[in-house]
Amino acid sequence: MPVFLTSEDADFEARFAALLGMKREEAEDVDQVVAGIIADVRTRGDTAVLELTARFDRLELTAAGMAFSDAEIAAEIAKVSAEDRAALELAAERIRAYHERQRPEDASWTDAAGAQLGWRWTPVSAAGLYVPGGLASYPSSVLMNAIPAKVAGVSRLVVTCPTPGGVVNPLVLLAAQIAGVDEVYRIGGAQAIAALAYGTATIAPVDKITGPGNAFVAAAKRRVFGRVGIDMIAGPSEILVIADAGNDPDWIALDLLSQAEHDQSAQAILITTDAGLAQAVVAAVEARLQTLERREIAGASWRDNGAVIVVADLAQAAALANRIAPEHLEIMVEDAEALAAAIPHAGAIFLGPWTPEAIGDYVGGPNHVLPTARSARFSSGLNVLDFMKRTTMARMTPEALKAIGPSAERLAISESLEAHGLSVRARLDRLNG
Amino acid sequence: MPVFLTSEDADFEARFAALLGMKREEAEDVDQVVAGIIADVRTRGDTAVLELTARFDRLELTAAGMAFSDAEIAAEIAKVSAEDRAALELAAERIRAYHERQRPEDASWTDAAGAQLGWRWTPVSAAGLYVPGGLASYPSSVLMNAIPAKVAGVSRLVVTCPTPGGVVNPLVLLAAQIAGVDEVYRIGGAQAIAALAYGTATIAPVDKITGPGNAFVAAAKRRVFGRVGIDMIAGPSEILVIADAGNDPDWIALDLLSQAEHDQSAQAILITTDAGLAQAVVAAVEARLQTLERREIAGASWRDNGAVIVVADLAQAAALANRIAPEHLEIMVEDAEALAAAIPHAGAIFLGPWTPEAIGDYVGGPNHVLPTARSARFSSGLNVLDFMKRTTMARMTPEALKAIGPSAERLAISESLEAHGLSVRARLDRLNG
Repeated sequence: MPVFLTSEDADFEARFAALLGMKREEAEDVDQVVAGIIADVRTRGDTAVLELTARFDRLELTAAGMAFSDAEIAAEIAKVSAEDRAALELAAERIRAYHERQRPEDASWTDAAGAQLGWRWTPVSAAGLYVPGGLASYPSSVLMNAIPAKVAGVSRLVVTCPTPGGVVNPLVLLAAQIAGVDEVYRIGGAQAIAALAYGTATIAPVDKITGPGNAFVAAAKRRVFGRVGIDMIAGPSEILVIADAGNDPDWIALDLLSQAEHDQSAQAILITTDAGLAQAVVAAVEARLQTLERREIAGASWRDNGAVIVVADLAQAAALANRIAPEHLEIMVEDAEALAAAIPHAGAIFLGPWTPEAIGDYVGGPNHVLPTARSARFSSGLNVLDFMKRTTMARMTPEALKAIGPSAERLAISESLEAHGLSVRARLDRLNG
Repeated sequence: MPVFLTSEDADFEARFAALLGMKREEAEDVDQVVAGIIADVRTRGDTAVLELTARFDRLELTAAGMAFSDAEIAAEIAKVSAEDRAALELAAERIRAYHERQRPEDASWTDAAGAQLGWRWTPVSAAGLYVPGGLASYPSSVLMNAIPAKVAGVSRLVVTCPTPGGVVNPLVLLAAQIAGVDEVYRIGGAQAIAALAYGTATIAPVDKITGPGNAFVAAAKRRVFGRVGIDMIAGPSEILVIADAGNDPDWIALDLLSQAEHDQSAQAILITTDAGLAQAVVAAVEARLQTLERREIAGASWRDNGAVIVVADLAQAAALANRIAPEHLEIMVEDAEALAAAIPHAGAIFLGPWTPEAIGDYVGGPNHVLPTARSARFSSGLNVLDFMKRTTMARMTPEALKAIGPSAERLAISESLEAHGLSVRARLDRLNG
């Protein structure tokens, strides 16, 4: 049974705080192993990557065989059904349309002092996208990572995807092709992250690395951060559903289970003002768990990490939701928009009963790479800006320098930075002299 | 003498690559010490912070004495001259005006399928700003970190600034007051970062931490990343000046020295099409180094890390500049805007001879917290978006779900995520039933 809390309980605050503080993932201490792998790839390049791939993925490759050739890609893609291809293409088109609206604008203006100011956005030149192998090798994630990069204008986009024992998911290759990925390598783990960050003879280095991965990949991303940019370190998936009376308990149960089935560390929480609905959802989850294909994973997630919370009113629901700062937030109440406005801290919000979170995983348009583990308090889902950077621009005229230069000189002197002050003073003297 | 390269040299590429790969900072291995400090603060809270402050800053505090009181702040601020105050206020006003233009816009639209889509930007609730003590305790950095946070709408803004031996910089406190900082604590080092990230009885935790610091602070920020958001890990300062013939060598020399004087690990580089100017700048630097207050630091930086590169034309200058991806880029050529357009990878660009970089450090308006160590390839200077996050929003109507739901279901099945598919199917069945 999941945690069941009622806000009227005497120990509610303590139990809710315990739920928030719950550690769902064991922090595997792989940092030393990963440090060794990165050092090895920096020193020995391709040779190290090939040895590590043989060891971890049971796959013997040559340097030339690391990349999928066009012919190999075509052969794999030919296995995809027309229906799957059409679904992927619809998803890609909608994700592209959404993210194209995120393209930022440059700015340029002249202020009262006569200073010309502004900024300029430009894409990173090359980005690497890590795609996990095996069970979590999701073609939808390829689209969600690659399309924002291409919309940003990244000219070289590289995918690394381990193929343990040589097994490939054709849909991953198709998604990469649809999204416009330029190179795909059959390598994974910390060695793939190291190759992307530092480059090898075969793989040119990139400037930014995104995408989910296991503990080794996460530790490697943390280590190369600074050398390259990285996206967030992803934790297990989460959903919070806020519902009032009059919702279908089975719909809510399925929405909760669609996170729970990802991973037994995933977390699904229902907050409701209706105690009857709470009970009905618990029963509906149990019923669905009888037959669900991934019932072992989903059941463990629900039992160990799930929670049902009955609150007095929606204001209380909003307050708790902000503390949870959920990755996914479904709002199934009469005025969903009003409640959403009271919950600033959430990765993605799904409004109304006709918006199951799974729509957002695939075809809604918004990104499904979202901040987990309460990081929606300070970070955003993956977006076009993650693949761009802003350069600030300034041009002083002599008049502008006359107007504001003396203050710069004054502050430089107060900070004991004489050359700073002199660089302004030399120009002011020319103007005054 | 700094490195002197001419693009016609036979070994130019090798020597330029060596310059790029040069390690200017010794990587102090403080990670284990920092891990211990963070664990200690998490366990013992205020007690640990107070003991560590006594040990590292030679300052005995009580928990109640960690924060500056209003009276203490007023007493310190009273020491500031009217001129310094006026300069700080002008700087604050210009920085605020620039950053107010960076406020992002929300979006909301209905697409052809009838799906209501959009996003919403909201500020982080609480941010912590680390201000170094001692020599590098710059009031301008307080403004540059705090003002974007306040423009973003951060409601609680906390400064930590160590005061070794109890010594305070009144200008830092004044800058904090002008910028609207809410709390100032006289603590520093990894213990301050840990207190900001995890909270103590006295200091409530924040959601985002920004600001420069020494190796301990940098290692602590890297460790708490994920628990809270952080800005970049700052490295030593850099400037690249690109100049053609007809510039004043002394102006360029002063601009180069204004980075070199920060730190002996700082790097100042001149690229010019004019060999005569190159020689004249080298001579002008030597002349200024005779009398500069910080000549030991600036001289060591120039000698060990400086470089002068003579190129055949501006296209070559642009290509090299993109590889350097400088933190600060001054362009002093006839058509500075045209050359800037060819250099996407730079933190901040200063156009024309009347725009010394020092203007940008204080009063220009753009931020002076900028990406170092080639990270302008993938990251931006500090800006308002660093203190905000974007929540994506989606609402499906029954019609929209009918249009795109089947593709979501199909993709869910292809990824073996049955509950995802069922959550869509249950709703489609209701519509079709």
